[in-house]
Order: sequence, then structure tokens, then C-alpha cells
Amino acid sequence: MSRKPRRQKPSRRDITIHRRTPPGASPGQVIPDPSQPKPTIHVTGFDEAGVTDHDVPDPAAARALVGRHALTWINVEGLGDAKTIERFGELFHLHRLALEDTVNVHQRAKVEDYDEVLFIVMRMVTCPDRCATEQLSIFIGPNWVITFQEGTPGDPFDRIRARIREGGRIRQLGTGYLAYALMDATIDAYYPVLEVYAERLDELEDLVVQPRNTRVIDDLHAVKADLLILRRALWPLRDAMAMLAREETTRFPPEVRPYLRDCYDHVVQIVELVETYRELTADLRDLHMSSISNRLNETIRVLTIISTIFIPLTFIAGIYGMNFDNGGGTRPLNMPELYWYWGYPACLAGMAITAALLVYYFYRQGWIFTGRSA
Amino acid sequence: MSRKPRRQKPSRRDITIHRRTPPGASPGQVIPDPSQPKPTIHVTGFDEAGVTDHDVPDPAAARALVGRHALTWINVEGLGDAKTIERFGELFHLHRLALEDTVNVHQRAKVEDYDEVLFIVMRMVTCPDRCATEQLSIFIGPNWVITFQEGTPGDPFDRIRARIREGGRIRQLGTGYLAYALMDATIDAYYPVLEVYAERLDELEDLVVQPRNTRVIDDLHAVKADLLILRRALWPLRDAMAMLAREETTRFPPEVRPYLRDCYDHVVQIVELVETYRELTADLRDLHMSSISNRLNETIRVLTIISTIFIPLTFIAGIYGMNFDNGGGTRPLNMPELYWYWGYPACLAGMAITAALLVYYFYRQGWIFTGRSA
Amino acid sequence: MSRKPRRQKPSRRDITIHRRTPPGASPGQVIPDPSQPKPTIHVTGFDEAGVTDHDVPDPAAARALVGRHALTWINVEGLGDAKTIERFGELFHLHRLALEDTVNVHQRAKVEDYDEVLFIVMRMVTCPDRCATEQLSIFIGPNWVITFQEGTPGDPFDRIRARIREGGRIRQLGTGYLAYALMDATIDAYYPVLEVYAERLDELEDLVVQPRNTRVIDDLHAVKADLLILRRALWPLRDAMAMLAREETTRFPPEVRPYLRDCYDHVVQIVELVETYRELTADLRDLHMSSISNRLNETIRVLTIISTIFIPLTFIAGIYGMNFDNGGGTRPLNMPELYWYWGYPACLAGMAITAALLVYYFYRQGWIFTGRSA
Amino acid sequence: MSRKPRRQKPSRRDITIHRRTPPGASPGQVIPDPSQPKPTIHVTGFDEAGVTDHDVPDPAAARALVGRHALTWINVEGLGDAKTIERFGELFHLHRLALEDTVNVHQRAKVEDYDEVLFIVMRMVTCPDRCATEQLSIFIGPNWVITFQEGTPGDPFDRIRARIREGGRIRQLGTGYLAYALMDATIDAYYPVLEVYAERLDELEDLVVQPRNTRVIDDLHAVKADLLILRRALWPLRDAMAMLAREETTRFPPEVRPYLRDCYDHVVQIVELVETYRELTADLRDLHMSSISNRLNETIRVLTIISTIFIPLTFIAGIYGMNFDNGGGTRPLNMPELYWYWGYPACLAGMAITAALLVYYFYRQGWIFTGRSA
Amino acid sequence: MSRKPRRQKPSRRDITIHRRTPPGASPGQVIPDPSQPKPTIHVTGFDEAGVTDHDVPDPAAARALVGRHALTWINVEGLGDAKTIERFGELFHLHRLALEDTVNVHQRAKVEDYDEVLFIVMRMVTCPDRCATEQLSIFIGPNWVITFQEGTPGDPFDRIRARIREGGRIRQLGTGYLAYALMDATIDAYYPVLEVYAERLDELEDLVVQPRNTRVIDDLHAVKADLLILRRALWPLRDAMAMLAREETTRFPPEVRPYLRDCYDHVVQIVELVETYRELTADLRDLHMSSISNRLNETIRVLTIISTIFIPLTFIAGIYGMNFDNGGGTRPLNMPELYWYWGYPACLAGMAITAALLVYYFYRQGWIFTGRSA
Repeated sequence: MSRKPRRQKPSRRDITIHRRTPPGASPGQVIPDPSQPKPTIHVTGFDEAGVTDHDVPDPAAARALVGRHALTWINVEGLGDAKTIERFGELFHLHRLALEDTVNVHQRAKVEDYDEVLFIVMRMVTCPDRCATEQLSIFIGPNWVITFQEGTPGDPFDRIRARIREGGRIRQLGTGYLAYALMDATIDAYYPVLEVYAERLDELEDLVVQPRNTRVIDDLHAVKADLLILRRALWPLRDAMAMLAREETTRFPPEVRPYLRDCYDHVVQIVELVETYRELTADLRDLHMSSISNRLNETIRVLTIISTIFIPLTFIAGIYGMNFDNGGGTRPLNMPELYWYWGYPACLAGMAITAALLVYYFYRQGWIFTGRSA
Repeated sequence: MSRKPRRQKPSRRDITIHRRTPPGASPGQVIPDPSQPKPTIHVTGFDEAGVTDHDVPDPAAARALVGRHALTWINVEGLGDAKTIERFGELFHLHRLALEDTVNVHQRAKVEDYDEVLFIVMRMVTCPDRCATEQLSIFIGPNWVITFQEGTPGDPFDRIRARIREGGRIRQLGTGYLAYALMDATIDAYYPVLEVYAERLDELEDLVVQPRNTRVIDDLHAVKADLLILRRALWPLRDAMAMLAREETTRFPPEVRPYLRDCYDHVVQIVELVETYRELTADLRDLHMSSISNRLNETIRVLTIISTIFIPLTFIAGIYGMNFDNGGGTRPLNMPELYWYWGYPACLAGMAITAALLVYYFYRQGWIFTGRSA
Repeated sequence: MSRKPRRQKPSRRDITIHRRTPPGASPGQVIPDPSQPKPTIHVTGFDEAGVTDHDVPDPAAARALVGRHALTWINVEGLGDAKTIERFGELFHLHRLALEDTVNVHQRAKVEDYDEVLFIVMRMVTCPDRCATEQLSIFIGPNWVITFQEGTPGDPFDRIRARIREGGRIRQLGTGYLAYALMDATIDAYYPVLEVYAERLDELEDLVVQPRNTRVIDDLHAVKADLLILRRALWPLRDAMAMLAREETTRFPPEVRPYLRDCYDHVVQIVELVETYRELTADLRDLHMSSISNRLNETIRVLTIISTIFIPLTFIAGIYGMNFDNGGGTRPLNMPELYWYWGYPACLAGMAITAALLVYYFYRQGWIFTGRSA
Repeated sequence: MSRKPRRQKPSRRDITIHRRTPPGASPGQVIPDPSQPKPTIHVTGFDEAGVTDHDVPDPAAARALVGRHALTWINVEGLGDAKTIERFGELFHLHRLALEDTVNVHQRAKVEDYDEVLFIVMRMVTCPDRCATEQLSIFIGPNWVITFQEGTPGDPFDRIRARIREGGRIRQLGTGYLAYALMDATIDAYYPVLEVYAERLDELEDLVVQPRNTRVIDDLHAVKADLLILRRALWPLRDAMAMLAREETTRFPPEVRPYLRDCYDHVVQIVELVETYRELTADLRDLHMSSISNRLNETIRVLTIISTIFIPLTFIAGIYGMNFDNGGGTRPLNMPELYWYWGYPACLAGMAITAALLVYYFYRQGWIFTGRSA
Repeated sequence: MSRKPRRQKPSRRDITIHRRTPPGASPGQVIPDPSQPKPTIHVTGFDEAGVTDHDVPDPAAARALVGRHALTWINVEGLGDAKTIERFGELFHLHRLALEDTVNVHQRAKVEDYDEVLFIVMRMVTCPDRCATEQLSIFIGPNWVITFQEGTPGDPFDRIRARIREGGRIRQLGTGYLAYALMDATIDAYYPVLEVYAERLDELEDLVVQPRNTRVIDDLHAVKADLLILRRALWPLRDAMAMLAREETTRFPPEVRPYLRDCYDHVVQIVELVETYRELTADLRDLHMSSISNRLNETIRVLTIISTIFIPLTFIAGIYGMNFDNGGGTRPLNMPELYWYWGYPACLAGMAITAALLVYYFYRQGWIFTGRSA
């Protein structure tokens, strides 16, 4: 029982897609995951002059606050209520398909341009115990940005809220820069997660050479599965960021472009790190398997040496343990050796010579008395 | 006999292509698979005003119904009759090569534009026991859509028929939207199938660490072969959908374009899931092989320890089991130990010391008395 | 001797290229393989009105027949005579490099446009015992098509000859359609070959789980090598067909274009099948190796259990087989057990307990008394 | 203890990225690694007329020197002081994001064109014990070049300083040529490092066939990990150099273009060498594993031969060592052999025949008395 | 000692690059490898009228001969003298970087267009014992072609010299055709080398199934390493030839273009062959490893069967070899079996039954008495 390894399986949530609409259902249906928390809506309006913060009960209240400041950021946490999401869609003219994507929280990162509104989906990394990702949907309008999160506590946006309060570029530039700041924070949140994996690989590097450590292979497998999940989240994100950094869009004016390129550089760097870690993991697995093979070889060599030396000796002892009766000398061919004066010493000497020859044979084979490194 | 694993082989139908025309035969011949069921024709005419449904006996009757409503969907199940298919070709001006592709139900997904008629082929997934696919051929004309299915009972279009009856966008937009709805339903039908595989992988994740479970490797092989089939069906579908979503065609007006993009996103997501599952399957196989190697190592270690300790001891016992006769003391060199007062205790002590030295040697080698995780 | 597996090696002809001209020789030299049969020339002239067939002795006679009908197809079998080939070159203005390619029958499929004449090379599959390919060279002129084959008996063109006799499109459309028909027949001839491999893989699927079947691994290797040869023949063919289907050329008018696209679809499908079979072959090899590993593990487990149980017991028996002499009681320490009343039963009981403990240990290790599937 | 291999782990610095700003922090923050040494600034002004060298205490002093000569190269070693870096930014109008990249010394090689200033990042190889890389940032202005290094002692620029002193092209051509010279030196510094790896692979080639040499696999792993790090540094560098060699930029006039192409050729060559070494490393690992397998096979063969020959013989000896009592002839069935005249010789002869048969069996199996190469 | 395999290591020359200039040195330095032979210069002038051949002592003499005929080919063998090379550079206006590449004989194949002079580098294959390549540098001027070779005796240009003497196209067309002829000869020289490898693979195909043949794995490794070197030489050559065949350059007029395309076809074919051989080598390695595994399995099966049958029997014999004393009947529990009338026969019968049961067990397991192919 206690031998069963406590392997952690990869987060099923990240590798399974369960659609709540049956095949053939009308597109654009907003059917949230019932296990999701109810939405809470936070509105931050700001311009160079100042900042106001509101928690509002419903989309209409949020809509009413738009326009009071030059820029409004509406952050919705929790996607558990279809009506709220749909009401946002009506009030801000969000496309039905984008709303459907918002509540089906297993989207690949992508950028969709619905003329009026730019829709960006990306995956935020969360790493409580095992690595997992959740969905962040960003709608960028003329003077507002709406973000939908899954509502797991904790997001990487606290520092952005602080920056808005502190003032600076984020208060002066438009919705594009705010959206950039949110994406940048989401992407940069991958760095500390990758540091954790770098550390785990570093530890595993020490452990893989211990061939009896059965945890190693499970740990390597877990790391590999996690990196696969990260990779799935990051590759489409890279493509989406490349598109944003490259193509001219109304929401991202030229002065924001270098920031998007910087952001793209970060994604590329993260993707490369993940690929490097994947290669290192594969290398460590190879190293571990070699280590197991070496140990097996060593074990069998010991077995072979011991067996091969003692089996013939035991056979000789067996010979002279036979009870052939010489009939007090009347059957002289029956084991005369037993009655020789030097019988026993000669027998022992024979054994010693046999053993010595075998040892010499093994020595010539390079199996014994050779330095490890030879 | 009962040990033979009940492996399921991959669906031969999906990996074999049997052409019924010999090489060199005239192109565009409609020679259906004789094992296919006879065609049944269902005609659904609809517009914003209403819906009419007819089961018709032959293509001419279907043709006669076209035009009564703004839109007509003719669904043909079963491809077992060449005349019916050819008659459709004549009545609706379908290209001979497209008809040939329709009855040779092993086509890769593709889009072919024959000016008047847009021809789309794709593979529908069916998953009774083992994963298999069948062919769906869609012809899109100015005011009609014809679909040919292989006639296996059950298709993912029931919900579309319901939506037509219920009304809504599908009744207002043209043949492009109807075709989109059919493609979307076909693609979305892959999701539940993939959920089944996610579950199987989840179960296998628990089983792979059981090195004696010989079913695991067969199951992994079966999953791998199925994913290979899915992949073969999906990669060309992805390319076909990308082409539809990207290129302007007369049959798909701009307002249908976002829906095609959404559809393309789904295919990409499904393809990525399949690739992820393939990687996970390969990882699980590696894990299983490591598990087998570890177990082998452990088994041989036990064998070696037991053998190495007892073989020398048994040899010593063998020595003193020899019958060298000391002739009542006249041949004093013959096994004097047997006649010593402390002979037997000394012998046992010698054995105990030998065993202790060997145990100590193994301990130094790290083979025994070490925690598993060391 | 009888143990040597009867492995078939891959067709050397398909993986070796022997050039008959030394490096540095003048380009465009027509030096045929002397082992090739002498050419036989067959001329088929046809138009909508009728068909005439001639076997002609030399190129000049063939040239003389061109123009009598709207279209002339000259089929040359056997490349064993340099003069004949060169004479064709002079009479029909074929480029010297194309003629050199024609007799060096190891070309990759390609399309070369020499203004006047379009030159197409492709590989025909032949499958007597082991899969092999031979070269088909097609020259397309304004009103003639010349094909050069290697002259192995049997080609896939019999049905095309029949279609020419029967009339239809092939008699009406120009040289482009005739060339298409020949290419289509050549490509479709790969399907039955692939069916053979599908069947062999299907059989191997049953055999791979038999770990002692040493034929399996040889068969898998042979299939793999054959598929490698097919793949080498098909990949360049795919590129060549894609080019023909895509680019406008004078020899292929627009009405032939859909047929070329159909042809291209077939090549893609065949290439994908070959790749699928390669993956399946690799999977089967993995499965076989796992099966061998499992069997090895099982064998060693049996050995270990038997050895580990009996070795200590045999040691105990060895102990009491020693001949320490108690001197009729004067050396009471010498094996007093032998003289106890319960000595033998106690010894047997000790053995039984030892065996039971070992069995219990193995049971706890999960080595015995556990269901296979546990 | 002494058996624990002294494996060297890959340089963690090169595979871990630790960002000193939290996710969501304002972009363009200059927060240097506190462990970095303080910057030292060296200014080299030169033109065709002459060269002046200054060590200056702060950026302002460096700025003041710009303009005295046609060209000024400011080399900053050590990135441990935020203020100095920021002051450079202000004085030379360096973009904040570029400054951030300069102090975060884990950038991928890239070229960023900020209109006024061209910013190039690349990785310099250093190879004290294990292979590692450090960052070189180059800013190219109209008449100045600023380079930021991490401040590890030793850089490949000594020869460039000598060339400046000696005069020649480097004194005549502009900032582009100076920047090229710096990049070229950085890239060429990879060659001697790769020579070291070529030598190590050469040594390993000799060692891999020694199956008991456990260092080999660790060494191969270390080489592989190092090559992975080199590859990560080089691939983006290749892309950056390709871009510089291809695209027209104001800083690199046409006469410098061939030099950039030459430089690009070197990077490509180095990348290819790294890939070749990676393949060789993988091949050597395969060779080593084969060598281990062969040795294992050989060991088990010896064990099997010895065991298989002696186990039956020992059994026969065991039979005649049994003590069945013939009661002085009253129980004649109890081991009559023991009382035969020829008993013992017959027994020995039986053993010899058994052994001979087994040896013959092994000979037929090809296990003994066969040449190695058979 | 005699067991150490005589492995041949891959040619270090081809996988190591030693630069004779330190990093940072001025570009364009001509520092030849001192071990290179001194240059010998051969000048061949020719036009349609005739041919003259001269061995000249220095570049100036060669320069003086240019212009006497329409075309001059200057062939330099041996790169051991910097002055000669530099003098060529001055006299023919060769770019310094090209000269540097000429003497650093480890260049990748490339084409560099220095306006006046087209510079082509490629690798010539030489195959004395192990496969190696050497560098060929071609400079193409308006009416001269200069080739630099490394000076190893033997080049593939003898037949070109013969063609020049014989006359024909090579005397009529310009420098482009001459350069083409040289490149074509260099490329075609790879064919016989590849034939050697085809033969070696063919031989290895027979040897890999001999699991004890330890040479096989070394030979496969050597072939693999050689193919890697060939591949490194050929891939850049393919790109260079593709560029020449595709792009219009002044040196290659349209009438030479089909010849360049033919040349490109050859390179592609050779590259594909090398890739095919690499795959075959990998397959053979797999086959060999399977063969080793099978043999190991077989060996262990024999060991297990013999051990498992005899170990219990020997134990039974051991039991009745114990010396428990029945005190002349006073301790009746001590081995009464020994005193039974049927004791010995019963014991033998018990052994026979045990053996029969074990044999039956193995038969049921399919370990014995089953055909090999079952």
C-alpha cells in the first residue's frame, strides 16, 4: 500500500474540453459552467485627473459609469451567471461568439477583431500545487476595457491597480496601453512559475542517478506533463502576440507598438524556456534509464561471479558427498579417493585451483579487480 | 489461452483504401460500395415563413421540391445505388469527379469550387466501440444544400433539424449558413469523443505503474492507433476550414465569415487536443516501460542477494558433507574438522561470519537496509 | 543454418544509384543500362473519328505516323538501345538532358518545361515479391505524347488503351488529357499495393504480442524498408503534381485542370497512407519490444521465486547433511540436532516455515497470488 | 561515497530567468541584479587622425567626450548600478525598454530599431569550467557606439582595441563597421569553445565502448546540456544576424553589408556545428547503451552456461548423497547402485555424458566455441 | 586486448573548425593552414580554335596568360602560401573576405556575388578510407575561372580537361558553362561514394541479426557518422545550387540554366539518398537491438527452465542426504523414509513427478515444446 507512488496526475481541467452545448446547437449560446462562482463586477474609471473605483451589482450600473472618465476598466470575476454575461454583450455590443468563448473557458489564445471591439483571449497561469491555467478574456472598446476572469482568487493585476492609482503613462495613454499592461502582467506571471520548474529540474538532476529511486520517474513524468500544458497555453499566445505586434490595429496606436513587441519578446523567451526544460526533462529521463541499466548490469555481474565460482566447487563437494560403498575394500572402484591418505587435502586443493582459474578468467574478462573508471 | 490479450485492432476501414475502379479506369465513375445501404432521401424546405419536410423516393421528386421555399436541404443517407447518385448529378449539375469522391468514402477533407456548386468533403466521427470516421459530402448550390452520408444510423444533425423547426438565424440566412451549421455540428461531434479518450488516458495514468499489467500496453497501443485515425481525419479538415475562413467565396457572405472562423478555431482546438493526447500517450508508454525496468531491476536484486548469500553457505555445508574417511584416525588429514570438539559450532560460526560479511557488502553497495527513496 | 531468418532485403535497385557516366563526363549523354531490354515501339493514333494501332520498328516510322490523327501516343518499352532513344530526341526535338534522365532510370519525379515539349518523370510501382518502382518518362508535344517505360512486362495502361478504343472524352480532349490519363493510371496503381501492406500490418498486429516469434521483427523491418522506398517515390511526385495542378501550362488547358487536381488529391491521399502505415509500423515495433520486455520480466520473476524459495531450504538440508562426528556422544556439540527425538520433524517444520515466510514476502511484493490484471 | 559521480550540472544561470520586477510592474524599469559589479566606463574616441582613451567616472563625462573624434566607443562593464544606466539613457536618448533589457541579462539575441538608435543584444560565450553565456548590449548612434557587458573579467575585444590603435579600415568606416567588428569578435569567440567540445566528443568516442565506465554517461549528459545552452544562445543570434545582413538600415551602409553577410555565415556555421555535435552526442549515447546491452548479454550467457552444465551434475551427486538404508541388503531397492562394483565409475561416466550433451547443445545454439565475429 | 573493437572514428577534420585568426582579428586575413602544400598553378586557355596548357610559377604569370584565349581556367592546388593567394586577390580583384574563405577550408557551400566576380564554395568528397570532404573555391570572372583546391592528389576534373581538349560545347560557351561543368563533376563524384555506402548497408543488413557480432554496432555507428558528414556538406550545397538554378546572374546565361537545374536535381537526389541511408542505418540499429533483446530473452529462458526444474529436485535429494540419526530405531521420527522398503524408488518417483509437473507448467506457459514461429 505504502509502495504505491503518490504520483500527481496532470490537471485534467487543462487537457479535457467539455462542451456544455451539444453538437449542432445554435452558435453563440452563453451557457456557463454551473460550478463557476457568480460574477462580481469592479469598475475603475481614470484619466490624468484622477481615479474612481466602484463595485457595481450589475452590467447596467457598469455601463452607466463609462464615460465619466476618459478610460474605464471593468473587471468581471466569476463566469457563473449567463444573464450577466449576456447583458454585458447587449450593453457593449460584444459579439455572441465572443461571449460564448468567454464562458467556455478552454479557449486557445487568440485575437479576434469585431470592427468595433477587439477581443483577446489568453491563458493565465496559476500554480497552487500543480500547474494549471485559467482563461482571461479582454474586450477593448473605444474608451473602455472589459476583462472576464474565471474567478479563482488571486490575479496578477494588483500591481496594475496600484499603477493606475499612482498615475503615470497608464493614466495618459488609451485603452490599448491598458490592455497591453494587462497582457504584459499575465505573461510575466509565467516567469515565477518557470523558476519553480527550473528548481525542480535542478533537484531531479541530483536524483536521477539513484537507480532505485522510483519517485524520480514519476516526478519527471509530472514535470513533463505540466510543461506540455504550459506549452499548449503558450504557443497560441505567441502567435496572437506576434499578430498584435506586427499588424496595425485601431486599438493599438504606434506609441504602444514597442511595448507590444517587448511583450512578444517575453512570450518568445518563455516559450523557449519551456522547450529547453522539455529537452532537459527528456535528457534526465535518458540519464535515469541509463543509470538503471548500469545498476542492472552491475547486479547481474555480481550474481554471475559468485554463482560461477561456487557452483563448480559445490559440485565437487557433492561428488565426495555421495555414498558409494566400497564394501570395506571389496568394491575398490567405489570412490577410492575417500580412502586415500591425502584425499581431503587434495580435494580442497582441487577446489582452490578451480576457484583461482575462474577468478583469473574473470580478471581477464575485466569483470573484477579493475578500477571503475577503466 | 485465456492469457491472450483481447486487443482491439484499429478500424481497418479507416486505414485501408480499396478503390473499386482499376488503375487506368475513366475518371468520374460512380461505383458505390455494394455493402452500402440503399439511399433514403429527405427534403427539408424552409424560409422565414415556415418549414416543410418530405421523404421522397427519388432525386427527381427532390428536384421538384426545390424552389418552393427560399432554401432546400436535401439529405441523402446511404450510398448504395449508383443510379440515384448519378441522377442527382444530372439534376443539380454536380461535377462527375465530385460524385466519384462522394461514393468513394475514404476522401480527405477538402473544399472544391466548381463555379456553380461548392463541394465540401469532411469526415464525421462515430464512436460505437472503437473510434471510426465516415464521410460527409456537402454540395452547396444557390438555393439548395445536398448532403450525402454513409447511412450509419445516427448523425449529429438532429439538433439542426430542431433549430430549423424552431426558427431563428438559420431560417433567415442563406445556404452558406446552413452549410456552416452542418459543418459546425460535424466538428463539435469530435468533442465528446475526445472526452472519452481523456478519460481513458486518465485511467491508464493509474495503471501504467503496475508493471505486470499487460493490458496497459495494449490499451495504450489502441489509444495511439485511434488518435492516429482521428488525426488523419482532422489535419486536412483544418486546412479546408482555414481556406473557407480565409478566402472570399460566393456561397459564404461576409456575415457568415465570423462563424466560419469560430468553426476553424474549434478544429484547431480539437487538433491540438489530439496532439496533446498523443504526447501524453507516448509519455505514459515511457512511464510504463520505466516501471517494467524498475521492477526487473528489483526482481534481479532480490535474486542476487538471496543467491549470493546462500550459495557460499551451501558450499561450506557441502564441504562437510563429504565422506572422506579418516580410517578411524589412520588417515588424519581426511576431514579432521569433523572430529574436533568444537567442529560443528565453529562451522556454523564460519557460516554466520560469511553471511554477515556479504550482508555488509550489500549494505555498502546500497542494496539493502536503505530507504526506498534514498 | 536453419535458424538464419529468411529476411528479404529491401530492393537494392531502389536505394542505389549507379551512374554509367564518370563524374565530369559531358552532360546529356545517353548511355542506357546494358541489362535493359531492347526498345519496342507502339504507336496509337486516334481522334474522334477513329483509332489506328501500329507496332513500328524504328523512331522514324513512328514520326511518320504523327499527324495522321489528331493525337498520337507513342509508347516505348525497354531502354536498352542508345541509338533509338537518341533518334527520338532528334526527330521530336527532345532536350538532351531529358533523354539522359530517360535512360538513367533512377530519377525523382519531376516536371521540366522545355518550351516546346513538357517533360514529366514519375515512378511506377511494381510489386512482384518485394515492392519496387520503375521509371516512366512522359514527353508531351503539341499533338503527340511519347512515353518511355523500362520494359518490365505489365503496365497499368491496358485500361487506357481500352478507353481509347471505346471512345469518349479521351478521344476528344488533347494531349494534356491523354497525359493526365497516363499519370492517373500510374498513381492509382499504388492503391492495390498499399492494400497489400494494410493486410500485412493487420497480420503483424496479431503476431507482435508473441514475444518468441522472431519473424515479426524481420517482417516489420521489411515493411518499414518498403514503405521508405514508396515514400521516396511519392514525395517528389506529390510536389510535381501540385505544380501541374497549380500552374498554368500550355499543355494542360483549363478543362483538364480539375482532373489534375483530382490526381493530386490521390497522390496526397497515398502519401498520407504511407505515412500512417509508417507510424503504425513503428507502433507495432514498440508493442513487440514491450511484449519482449514483459516476457523477460515474467521469466525472471519465475526464476527468482523458485530460486529464492528453494535455495535457503537446500542450505538447511545441506547443514544436516554434514558429517560432524559426535564421537558416540563424546563430542556433544557436533550436531546434537541429529540425535534429538524430534530432530527430523523439527527440521522439516523449520523448512516449511521458511518457505511460508518467503511466499508471504512475495505475496506482499505482489509477485504471486495476484490476478494478472491487478 | 566515492562512487557518487562528480557530475557537473548545467549552468543554472543560463537556463533560469529570474525577473526582479513583479508581474504587472511598469515596463521599462531599470532594476539591475544587485550581485552585479558596479559599472566602469571606458571611452575610446578615434578617427583617421588618432585615438584617445579615457576611463571616466560617470555617463556625463562620457557624453562630454563624444564629438571630439569622428567616432566614440563607450564600453561599460558591470551593470550593478541603476542610476548610471538610467543616466546613459537620458544622455543618449536610449529607449527605456532597451535599458530594461540591458540590465535583465537573460535576453535572447535581437535587433531593435528605435529610429535614432539601433539596439542589438547578443550573448557572449564564456567557458571557464562549464559553458556559460553573458549578455552584450550594443547601442549604435550616429557617431557613437555604447556597449554594456556584464563585467565578468575578460572579453574578446582586446584585439579590436589593438586594431583601433593600429589604424586601418576600423578607423575609417563609421559606427556600423565598429559595431560589426564587435559582433564579429563576439561570434568568433564561439569557435575555440566548440573546439573544446570537439575534443571532448573525440575522447568520449573512445570511452563509450567501455560498458562499466559510469562517467561516460554523465559526461555525455553534461556535453548535451552545454550544447543545449549554446544552441539557445545561437539560434536567435542567427535570426538577428540574418535580419541585419538582409535589411537595409541607416547604421549599416552598403560597404559594411558584405562583412555582415560574412558574420552571418559564421553564425550559421557555428549553429550547424552545434547541431552536428548534438547528433554525435546522441549517437555516442546510443553506442554506449548498445555496449552495455552487449555486455549484459555476455554476462548472462556465461552465467547460463555454467549454471546449466553444473546444476544437473550437482543433482546427480545429490541423488547418490542420499542416505536411504538398504538394511544390510534387506531393503534391496534402497539405492542398489551404491553397492554395485562399477557404481562410482558409472556415475562419473553418466555425469560426463550429461555434461558433454549440454556442451554440444550450447555449441549447436552457437553459444560456445564460436568465433566472436560469427 | 584483442577484444577492443577496431572502431574508426569520424574524420575530425570534418567536424572541427579551427580558426587560425583569434576572435576580434581584422576580417579578410589570409592565413593558410601551414600543413597545406605549396600552391601549384596550372593555366588552361581555350576557345573554339584551340587549347593551350601551362604550368606557371606565380600568379602574375597566370594573369599574363589571361586574354590570349577567349576563356582561361586557372587551377590552383595547395593553399599553403599566403602571398600567392593574396597576389591572386590583387591581380584579379578578388574580395578579401572571399580569399579568407578560400584558405579557411571549412566553409559551408555558398554563392557570393561580388559584382565583378562570382564566388562559389563547395565541398568535394574524397573517400580514401573514411569519408571526408575538402573545399573547392571557384571564382568566376568575365573571361576567366579560378579554382582553388586543397591539393590532395586526385580530383574529378580529369575528364573535364579531356573534354576541353576534345572540343564541343565546353569550348563554345562561356565561363558560366565551364563553372557548371566543374560543379557538375564535383557533385557527380558523390555518386560512387554513396554506392560504397549502399554496399556497406547491404552487408550490414546480413550481419545485424547476429546478436553476438559486436562489430556490427561499431560499423553502424561509423556509417552514421560518415553520413552525417556527407549531409553537412550537401545541405548547404543544395541551397546554393537552388539559388544558382533559380536566380538570374550575369555569369550564367539562359542557355546554361537547364544545365544548372539538372545539376540541382542531382544534388537533391544525392541528399535524398543520404537521408534514406540514414533512415536505413537507424532501422538496422533497431533491428540489431531487437536481435540482442531476443537472444537475451532466449538465454534467460533456458537458464530459468533448467534452474526451475533441477532446484526442487536437488532440494529433495538434499533432504534425504541429511544425517538425522534414528538411533537404530529408538528415534523413529528421524527420517523413517530412509528405512522404508520402497523408500528410494518412492523418492525417485516423487522427483520424476515434480519434474513432470514443472515441464507441464512450462509447456502451458508456452516456454517449451512450441515451435519457434508459434
